[in-house]
Amino acid sequence: MLIVLDRHATEDNIQILLQRIKSMGLRAEVIPGSMRTAIGILGNTGYVDADSLTQLPGVKEVIHVTKPYKLVSREWKNEDTVIDVDGVKIGGKNFTVMAGPCSVESEEQLMETAEAVKKAGAQILRGGAFKPRTTPYSFQGLGLEGLKLLQKAKKKFDLPIITELLHVQNLDLVAANTDIIQIGARNMQNFELLMAVGKLKKPVMLKRGMSARMEEFLLAAEYILNAGNPNVILCERGIRTFETATRNTLDLNIVALVRELSHLPIIADPSHGTGRYSLVTPLSLAAFAVGAHGLLIEVHADPSKALSDGDQSLNLENFANLMNKLNHLKKFL
Amino acid sequence: MLIVLDRHATEDNIQILLQRIKSMGLRAEVIPGSMRTAIGILGNTGYVDADSLTQLPGVKEVIHVTKPYKLVSREWKNEDTVIDVDGVKIGGKNFTVMAGPCSVESEEQLMETAEAVKKAGAQILRGGAFKPRTTPYSFQGLGLEGLKLLQKAKKKFDLPIITELLHVQNLDLVAANTDIIQIGARNMQNFELLMAVGKLKKPVMLKRGMSARMEEFLLAAEYILNAGNPNVILCERGIRTFETATRNTLDLNIVALVRELSHLPIIADPSHGTGRYSLVTPLSLAAFAVGAHGLLIEVHADPSKALSDGDQSLNLENFANLMNKLNHLKKFL
Amino acid sequence: MLIVLDRHATEDNIQILLQRIKSMGLRAEVIPGSMRTAIGILGNTGYVDADSLTQLPGVKEVIHVTKPYKLVSREWKNEDTVIDVDGVKIGGKNFTVMAGPCSVESEEQLMETAEAVKKAGAQILRGGAFKPRTTPYSFQGLGLEGLKLLQKAKKKFDLPIITELLHVQNLDLVAANTDIIQIGARNMQNFELLMAVGKLKKPVMLKRGMSARMEEFLLAAEYILNAGNPNVILCERGIRTFETATRNTLDLNIVALVRELSHLPIIADPSHGTGRYSLVTPLSLAAFAVGAHGLLIEVHADPSKALSDGDQSLNLENFANLMNKLNHLKKFL
Amino acid sequence: MLIVLDRHATEDNIQILLQRIKSMGLRAEVIPGSMRTAIGILGNTGYVDADSLTQLPGVKEVIHVTKPYKLVSREWKNEDTVIDVDGVKIGGKNFTVMAGPCSVESEEQLMETAEAVKKAGAQILRGGAFKPRTTPYSFQGLGLEGLKLLQKAKKKFDLPIITELLHVQNLDLVAANTDIIQIGARNMQNFELLMAVGKLKKPVMLKRGMSARMEEFLLAAEYILNAGNPNVILCERGIRTFETATRNTLDLNIVALVRELSHLPIIADPSHGTGRYSLVTPLSLAAFAVGAHGLLIEVHADPSKALSDGDQSLNLENFANLMNKLNHLKKFL
Repeated sequence: MLIVLDRHATEDNIQILLQRIKSMGLRAEVIPGSMRTAIGILGNTGYVDADSLTQLPGVKEVIHVTKPYKLVSREWKNEDTVIDVDGVKIGGKNFTVMAGPCSVESEEQLMETAEAVKKAGAQILRGGAFKPRTTPYSFQGLGLEGLKLLQKAKKKFDLPIITELLHVQNLDLVAANTDIIQIGARNMQNFELLMAVGKLKKPVMLKRGMSARMEEFLLAAEYILNAGNPNVILCERGIRTFETATRNTLDLNIVALVRELSHLPIIADPSHGTGRYSLVTPLSLAAFAVGAHGLLIEVHADPSKALSDGDQSLNLENFANLMNKLNHLKKFL
Repeated sequence: MLIVLDRHATEDNIQILLQRIKSMGLRAEVIPGSMRTAIGILGNTGYVDADSLTQLPGVKEVIHVTKPYKLVSREWKNEDTVIDVDGVKIGGKNFTVMAGPCSVESEEQLMETAEAVKKAGAQILRGGAFKPRTTPYSFQGLGLEGLKLLQKAKKKFDLPIITELLHVQNLDLVAANTDIIQIGARNMQNFELLMAVGKLKKPVMLKRGMSARMEEFLLAAEYILNAGNPNVILCERGIRTFETATRNTLDLNIVALVRELSHLPIIADPSHGTGRYSLVTPLSLAAFAVGAHGLLIEVHADPSKALSDGDQSLNLENFANLMNKLNHLKKFL
Repeated sequence: MLIVLDRHATEDNIQILLQRIKSMGLRAEVIPGSMRTAIGILGNTGYVDADSLTQLPGVKEVIHVTKPYKLVSREWKNEDTVIDVDGVKIGGKNFTVMAGPCSVESEEQLMETAEAVKKAGAQILRGGAFKPRTTPYSFQGLGLEGLKLLQKAKKKFDLPIITELLHVQNLDLVAANTDIIQIGARNMQNFELLMAVGKLKKPVMLKRGMSARMEEFLLAAEYILNAGNPNVILCERGIRTFETATRNTLDLNIVALVRELSHLPIIADPSHGTGRYSLVTPLSLAAFAVGAHGLLIEVHADPSKALSDGDQSLNLENFANLMNKLNHLKKFL
Repeated sequence: MLIVLDRHATEDNIQILLQRIKSMGLRAEVIPGSMRTAIGILGNTGYVDADSLTQLPGVKEVIHVTKPYKLVSREWKNEDTVIDVDGVKIGGKNFTVMAGPCSVESEEQLMETAEAVKKAGAQILRGGAFKPRTTPYSFQGLGLEGLKLLQKAKKKFDLPIITELLHVQNLDLVAANTDIIQIGARNMQNFELLMAVGKLKKPVMLKRGMSARMEEFLLAAEYILNAGNPNVILCERGIRTFETATRNTLDLNIVALVRELSHLPIIADPSHGTGRYSLVTPLSLAAFAVGAHGLLIEVHADPSKALSDGDQSLNLENFANLMNKLNHLKKFL
């Protein structure tokens, strides 16, 4: 950590600062400059949370040098984490497609979709049983009944399941009925929930919050690893920007940068990342090319009748076409 | 709702759309134009969630006319909602200052601050017992002990309390020990939590999510009102933008606009809204002038020693000066 | 255009509005609803700029149905525009790589880079002679001398040139010495400049402004087409968001969406779009996969000595590797 | 400047870096840490532009300590700059209101508005003669005729004039016919234009670009001061964010922060800052309270007939009411 002093900082100001740093158990070194003096903090073995020093007299700014995350970084663990979900591998050199309806709406709808995505080559079935909705007047999901239908589909089509856990009360129920626990974008900083799934060993897919910086995203994963669960899959699902022509802006820069900085697998969700079904296929190919470890895709047999996210769901034919393109592209790897 | 058709939409496309709309229990009217045709949906008594129609052939865009919120709007209830918290009024023509430390750190720290803010004129004492923190390695709050200290301060200085509720498991505990339940920015769309506090009658202060549009902010409040609790105070606490010179961008536009569109009280939090203690006073005066119903201010006896948010906390003297300026300003508005 | 009325709008309000619309030469149709009335404007053959009607009594909102752009849209011209630059084709099924240094710094630097990018397969040579710089104390480019060096490189290596035009005064000078005129992101809404290059036939590459919505981007191109020059290449170069881990956020959503809505070619600039050289290769592959018509890449023989943008420039070896990957990938798409 | 090294940086890496820094004429000091080494650059008398060092082996990050602006800062000149415009003072303890129509549309319109704003207490008349418009199909201003009408209004009502300069070709024409030259938001980084008005002594009002960070805003002003013109007025006019309920987000944080860091006057434009006429009055009061040195307000005799920006213009009565409130509030100072 570096403390930049005001040009008019006095010797007294510096002495008080040095004492304060010492009292925090840290070592300080004064770095004189031609314009201003700075103080380096040297003995820290990790991130130091000392922004409050900015209010001491003579201090202009506090600059962090060490990043606040650790366990998720390649400096901590260099080789890629590969997660095994009932034999399906996620991470490393694998590319894994998770597909299915936004919401489980009925047995017929789920089975028709599950059969089709399996046939097209998806390896994991997604489906929402508990749905977070912006307005209280929208369809909120089938709940427990939805979980049971997912289990039925899993057995029928031999497809591991991913579904969202909304709150700690449902932890046991959801964990018992899914193979991957999804933490949604709105819950990325629900630290209670992160610590709860951190106590399990079951794989967790953590979606990036819609205005989370990469560092905050990695720190949210750090909560889960720090609680004891190393099986975390990151998911870039689009960020909120000024652009209104698309629902979100899929941030593939961060997919490539996370691959550099972290050993965890990261997949992309072009359905939420674009919000327009016609953009899902080109952005899926782009996510593959940029190095994502997989995709999360919303598929519905009749998107125009979907109870949620119909505008961004692929129909069965378009999904099959996408899988063909991806299979062709995989030869490039 | 208005469905805009593609220039090349056929008569068949239109007939299918009209049947679909009819099957949803709605009435459609075709509006021919010189460039393209549109279809208006007329019989809806509220917001219609039919974005999925965009995937039907011939449809170019779906445009919403009716807003999705209702109970929070002035069209539903015209007069200002005024909330009574142990005799302290919030809303209408009242201006209410809530102040105190970011986190409750110790009895000494809390009592010293509570005494000072009371003396300076604050009407409600704020203080965090359970703290959401971006990294797992930061101070997480005193928990239950913090709540007990808040109760002690309440009795000693006759100050109603506001503190944050982080998750449903703590609902009874927090509700029993606070006068206003705070829902933090990260939980603005924790719908489970919104519905849970909606079942109480205790006042709830709902902070805007850091990337929530005004409509989403009002819809989150709608969840609480819809569940039965009309005592909601909104709080603008800064939004996330590209600007990095300040922690957030305090959005006073929305304070003025919410006053136009909603009957609920709305206050401002310039501590989080700026992230720099030197900006808290000018932005507090601005919030008053723009028509906010009050302020939420972080105050600490020695900000440089604060365990959280020290860089944005006022010390006791600066807070007293701010209150003097506000009292002076009140004579002019 | 649709004018949404307030619930409490009176018959008088409606009559005044209808007269106003009539006086604008347009035809209005009243659309009664169960909640509120709307007025559709029907006779317009293009975009109607009538937001000012919002101030008339009884008006709640004005909603645009027709988009304000025309010549750039696929509704106006369905087939892809393909631009010929000295035999190099841009648009349609072509994929064109433009590469070279951010700034022309010296003859040696330019020739070394030009030779290497030509050998690696680039088809067009980029290089800045006039540089817009955020601070007045940074290197501002070689100016005319830079243009002469570009001409020399062009002849020596048979590579068409692209360079930036900063202001109208240099129009003739730059147009005489380049094959494609680049309009930079900061000038996307310099309408004088757009109209000036619109009077030429020389190809223009228009970069998206760093906070331009897609509609504004297309409207800036519309200025050039409307002035008479149909040879416009769009360039997505990253938008400004809250994310600070990368210099900008490359918005590949918009590349895919522009391909849907417009017939103009669109290329991507992953150098500015990421600001980190290590991300340029993966984002280049992603841009190819999403359907961009080409790339604009900064290349420097020794990036650590570059006078501008060294942190985002590829060295000669990394550029050659990228071209190999692109050539390999081309076989699969 | 601080260069942070990778944990795995070798002694060789460090030696190469030290030589490079020495060859740039700077002095380096190695700062060993327990986690990683850093190198401080000490001899620089200003900002060092050396981001390109990030590509040298062993370098993880380059952190700037010194800010890149100088002449605009309070460290350079501590006392407030006060600018005299024909006897009207801007800056320091003065509060100056500039008001008038968005565009000059006709003699009648301009004179009616000028008379009314003068009577209500405005000190400077604004009006656009050359208008930058997002689409090529909108009204582009009266040009020279507009300038003449502004001169006529100036003489008739004894009101200094502010009008926008769009490009260098019109510099003499506009400078000869206005008292303050306005540089619009889209031109904030038109460095040619900044340097051109920097060669004059006439006051310049520089509007913040809609996605400019404060540092870039101050650097744009630095261009003008560095070219020789110290008479710069800054203008915050709203930034582009994800919020769509208002046209822009007026950033009053930055008004307060610029007052801290710079000696230049800064005013606010709540008309563009909100885009909704009903919000102009509350945000004007807020701008006053936060410490802005003045306001720029759009006023039109009949906003519903305005050829541009009618939705955000105050009518004559609302403007007079605003001035009454401001005059009342001024007593608070």
